[in-house]
Amino acid sequence: MNVLLVFAHQEPRSFNGALRDIAVRTLTENGCEVAVSDLYAEGFEARATAQDFTRRSNPKFFKYQAEQRDAAAGGDHGFSADILREQERLLRADLVIFQFPLYWFSVPAILKGWFDRVLAAGFAYGGGRFFEKAPLYGKRALLSLSMGAAEDRFGPSALYGDLNWVLHPLRVGTLNFCGFEVLDHHVVHGPASMTPAQREEVLERWQKRVCSLANETPLPFMKAFDPVQPGHSAGTKGAAM
Amino acid sequence: MNVLLVFAHQEPRSFNGALRDIAVRTLTENGCEVAVSDLYAEGFEARATAQDFTRRSNPKFFKYQAEQRDAAAGGDHGFSADILREQERLLRADLVIFQFPLYWFSVPAILKGWFDRVLAAGFAYGGGRFFEKAPLYGKRALLSLSMGAAEDRFGPSALYGDLNWVLHPLRVGTLNFCGFEVLDHHVVHGPASMTPAQREEVLERWQKRVCSLANETPLPFMKAFDPVQPGHSAGTKGAAM
Repeated sequence: MNVLLVFAHQEPRSFNGALRDIAVRTLTENGCEVAVSDLYAEGFEARATAQDFTRRSNPKFFKYQAEQRDAAAGGDHGFSADILREQERLLRADLVIFQFPLYWFSVPAILKGWFDRVLAAGFAYGGGRFFEKAPLYGKRALLSLSMGAAEDRFGPSALYGDLNWVLHPLRVGTLNFCGFEVLDHHVVHGPASMTPAQREEVLERWQKRVCSLANETPLPFMKAFDPVQPGHSAGTKGAAM
Repeated sequence: MNVLLVFAHQEPRSFNGALRDIAVRTLTENGCEVAVSDLYAEGFEARATAQDFTRRSNPKFFKYQAEQRDAAAGGDHGFSADILREQERLLRADLVIFQFPLYWFSVPAILKGWFDRVLAAGFAYGGGRFFEKAPLYGKRALLSLSMGAAEDRFGPSALYGDLNWVLHPLRVGTLNFCGFEVLDHHVVHGPASMTPAQREEVLERWQKRVCSLANETPLPFMKAFDPVQPGHSAGTKGAAM
């Protein structure tokens, strides 16, 4: 199995860094090829601008999606080197793990920029090719995230709303849309307030899960949750680390 | 009324640019003070890094939120000039309008970076101050967005899920969390495929709405939608442009 780990934390010795290191080591020991996109360390650009293309189709009016489509079509119009590198890493991967701290109920801007720029029109979707017709269909993705908030803050009637609503734009709107089958998200609540023993336990649980990722059944495709049963959630159970 | 318009489109002559221009002109004619944060034009940084602070509290271990808290506390530890400028604009504003095209069911990375960096711990929340206890409580916000997708793609049983799930991280998780009362979102579907007459009509409707923004009742605070009634949505009706 080829795995791409997209890492969006500034500090290599953070809890997110520990989760990344465990994933890389465990997957490698189990015979996987692992590539890491270390976004902050690589100075990955987050903003979608004209710099993302070797030339512009329309120098007078900038329409990002149209430039993406033309760049994906090839010829002398192409993507910038950093986007090409990420697209190549992505094409080689069977599974992509996104490791990040939750910022404002979403990914940090640097990872949002990875979605905006790498999952380009014409490359990851377009011309009726989305969801199960998307070019990347069949690949798998896993959202592995930390957050300060406690688990009981989330739920249909809880303070922050259901975690499935929080993850809907990422899980369905981004990953399913591009054809990824999404594994149950892996959430660590409040790593900063854990005792060393709790931390060890959480890291061990992650290691065990990483060992069996290849055998997991993805979450229902294109279906964040069933609104008729607000209590039901494919994700929430597993989300408890 | 003091209004801050945060603009996240690369092209001033885009449909988003037209919506911005109408808002600025209309609000100014109606006696408002209007400031514009033109994120791409100002080269606004999206990534949360050590460059965001005049010095680091902990040079050996980077924890973004902790550095934010120390920078907000003042002394010789402060925010970078671009963050300070945005925070000052924000403090002056009674209403903040976010004008953006939907990217991956969310804001473009450059605007996500504005949330990550400007709505800093210690400045916009922290120490138990969030939702109605947040320092910015009482200000209003409006999400004004364009998207390629047609309106019927959204709904509890529709292809993309309910628009309230899509906007939940922005509306509740970000804006309500920081104390903003959120006005009904303003959505324009498929501007690229409109006839000139349709475009004119949509722009006129926006102008009319902008005229009466001061009299609008915000959406329910901290409550994206009622999960017991999947069909109900305070947002969706108004969302039809």
